[in-house]
Amino acid sequence: MQQELIALLGADKVSVATDDLATHAIDKWNFAASPEVVVFAESTDDVSKVLAFAHQNKIPVTTRGAGIGYVGGAVPIQGGIVLSVARMNQILELAPADGLAVVQPGVITKTLQDSAAEVGWYYPPDPASLKECSLGGNIATNAGGPRCLKYGVTKNYVMGLEVVLADGTITRVGGRCHKNKTGFSLTELFVGSEGLLGIVTEATLRIIPHPQRRAMLTATFAQFSEAAAAVQTILNSGHLPSALEITDAFTLQAARDYLGADSLPAGEAHLIVEIDGRNSAVEAELPELESLLSTAGALSIETHRDDAACEAVWKLRREFSYSLRATGLTKLNEDIVVPRSKLVELVEFAQELAANTGIPVACFGHAGDGNIHVNLMVEDYDDPEKKKPADAALDQLFNWILANRGAITGEHGVGLAKKRWFQQAVGEANFSVHQAIKNALDVDAVLNPGKFLG
Amino acid sequence: MQQELIALLGADKVSVATDDLATHAIDKWNFAASPEVVVFAESTDDVSKVLAFAHQNKIPVTTRGAGIGYVGGAVPIQGGIVLSVARMNQILELAPADGLAVVQPGVITKTLQDSAAEVGWYYPPDPASLKECSLGGNIATNAGGPRCLKYGVTKNYVMGLEVVLADGTITRVGGRCHKNKTGFSLTELFVGSEGLLGIVTEATLRIIPHPQRRAMLTATFAQFSEAAAAVQTILNSGHLPSALEITDAFTLQAARDYLGADSLPAGEAHLIVEIDGRNSAVEAELPELESLLSTAGALSIETHRDDAACEAVWKLRREFSYSLRATGLTKLNEDIVVPRSKLVELVEFAQELAANTGIPVACFGHAGDGNIHVNLMVEDYDDPEKKKPADAALDQLFNWILANRGAITGEHGVGLAKKRWFQQAVGEANFSVHQAIKNALDVDAVLNPGKFLG
Repeated sequence: MQQELIALLGADKVSVATDDLATHAIDKWNFAASPEVVVFAESTDDVSKVLAFAHQNKIPVTTRGAGIGYVGGAVPIQGGIVLSVARMNQILELAPADGLAVVQPGVITKTLQDSAAEVGWYYPPDPASLKECSLGGNIATNAGGPRCLKYGVTKNYVMGLEVVLADGTITRVGGRCHKNKTGFSLTELFVGSEGLLGIVTEATLRIIPHPQRRAMLTATFAQFSEAAAAVQTILNSGHLPSALEITDAFTLQAARDYLGADSLPAGEAHLIVEIDGRNSAVEAELPELESLLSTAGALSIETHRDDAACEAVWKLRREFSYSLRATGLTKLNEDIVVPRSKLVELVEFAQELAANTGIPVACFGHAGDGNIHVNLMVEDYDDPEKKKPADAALDQLFNWILANRGAITGEHGVGLAKKRWFQQAVGEANFSVHQAIKNALDVDAVLNPGKFLG
Repeated sequence: MQQELIALLGADKVSVATDDLATHAIDKWNFAASPEVVVFAESTDDVSKVLAFAHQNKIPVTTRGAGIGYVGGAVPIQGGIVLSVARMNQILELAPADGLAVVQPGVITKTLQDSAAEVGWYYPPDPASLKECSLGGNIATNAGGPRCLKYGVTKNYVMGLEVVLADGTITRVGGRCHKNKTGFSLTELFVGSEGLLGIVTEATLRIIPHPQRRAMLTATFAQFSEAAAAVQTILNSGHLPSALEITDAFTLQAARDYLGADSLPAGEAHLIVEIDGRNSAVEAELPELESLLSTAGALSIETHRDDAACEAVWKLRREFSYSLRATGLTKLNEDIVVPRSKLVELVEFAQELAANTGIPVACFGHAGDGNIHVNLMVEDYDDPEKKKPADAALDQLFNWILANRGAITGEHGVGLAKKRWFQQAVGEANFSVHQAIKNALDVDAVLNPGKFLG
């Protein structure tokens, strides 16, 4: 296979080197499977040639962006070819006059954000890994982030795609227009398809005028339930913050252990309320929100008036993750979602789960849209004896989520990590629709086989 | 067929009465085709039974909401059954705590907007016909409207759907969560599918905190190009208005003829800039925008500070349409879209087209997203001798649109009206993907046959 691919693409785009196979066997999840060969595509034509070849020879192809996925989506579980688009990393066009950017899939998300900001424009989706992850991966997983509360997820910013289909056919869906009702929503169908329906080789992304200003309030509360109630109060009072982030007592304790007891004001729950807009709007909204937080019973409220101050809070927030890692335990990070009114019940359930299983559970995340990262902190997950009860605890978590009309993944995708609960989550008829669409576009299951459609 | 349907559903849900057949033979476009029978479904179960029956007997089923479509999408061009969901018109749930409403497809769009507003929440999509059209139709066509510039189109507000598939199977896609990455974007796939992939029997729609205030500036300019430049200036200055609406000289002349010469300030182009947000934000932004408009060369600028004043402008704006109708000509309203930087070229092309064909062309619409309603004003369109050159002019328009990377429909859908340009618009490979998906979900073409997939 290596020789045939070299004949198609040239030697510098094809590797079977041990280190290349190893780095392309994993993403950020806890499972590795080696490909037989890694292809570094440099153009749409390269991708098309690889897929035509793979299609003809029924060789699995797993597409890879920056390899920052959290669910094993880019892990080539059936071997074959890993097709990396990392070298396709050019911003082809930045066109504020049309309100769009045209990018290759390997562009790092923050690179686009920065380039847009330089000309006064904004690409809002902000997954936590935005400095490392690529837009192709964001599109494949329909990535989210804190600011999706106000701005929506990746799919809300994809206007058009160039896609290579399973047999190598190149097609375009959507386009350069901000509204487009020409046929089915094919652009959206490819967004979030996790490499199972086609390979994105170019994306036309919506950018919007950059907000003039952002600012933030942080508050602590005696109880998680009070912080959750404050979230509802804020939204019910006609405010739509750019982000509403909540953190539970367990996570705060880990942060205080790691960063020092004085790193955070007292309280068993922490809330971040970020807003953006025109200068004057932000200035006027801050005291309104402060008053709401105060009435909601906040123990402490701090105001962060500019970009640097906001970034410092986000940095602290990221330290929460490092604090959990510093416990020495394996963090099973599940990006579940609940209807927003169920936030308190979710955290209560997490506490019960921790008590019943002896596995600590840390909850923090995007309170505004109910997308909470529930982290099971597991000792020696590689030890089968420890893995078994941890996996049983995950089953309990996901059963609870589904019983409460939640979703098993909000922004990471299904990949391998959530595969076990996928059919239960969508139900039989929905699963059949998935299969029908997969069969319609990739009947031989060449594209990313072994994932949530088996 | 009538008797079998009565046996399935009961006599009061099935009609072959002449007037029912006649009213269900048309929508707002200019073509009629009578169904053999009209079914008034009252439940998901009714819809499922009809589709199972139709599927078994290969009878065409054309779904109908309020019948307000502009492209013949609900016209049963191959006869068979028109399945009306107009009786399924209940708001099942309004849940601000979860940020959502659950509705049946027959709910009138404005009814939901009003119900949400009463509890301080907002359902933004605002097609011009929102007092008459229904949410099921909005979903089928992915309806837009002026405020989509800031808030996005219908698909951005659909969280979950109950859908009856071609064979009568009931499925659910998406759900009650604001983020959901469980599998493919099936919710989005059904949104905008114009009745070709399934029938929506329930929708879970996102609502957001209601903006506290809205206000508006209206301005006139000596030239259309100056108004279009002002649109770019506003967006390039970091403002994201809720609406940016532009009107050309021909339309303004018709309005002055119809409403009186003094109904509008002097100028060959008219711009509406609507903003919303917190009180203080709106107050501060109005003078900033006024200054931008002034610098952009506006001949007149008027400020409209509250809801009532804004509504008066929207009422005037609707009169522009009536003014065109008052010319006595048939208005062929094409909701084309261009990349925003092409606005001026579009209107110049429209003027040339008018000059070359003798058919007046009126342009007005959503400048912010490039979605301009281009209205060809045709005399005696029913007369084949007049229809022919008008259709040839439409061909010229759509050829120009596609050559300039525009879209043939921004918010009305393809239906019958745009069918003739659909394949050209999407290209061969994309068309094949459409067919593959249609075949995967409705291989016998029971659902809305004769539309853009033949």
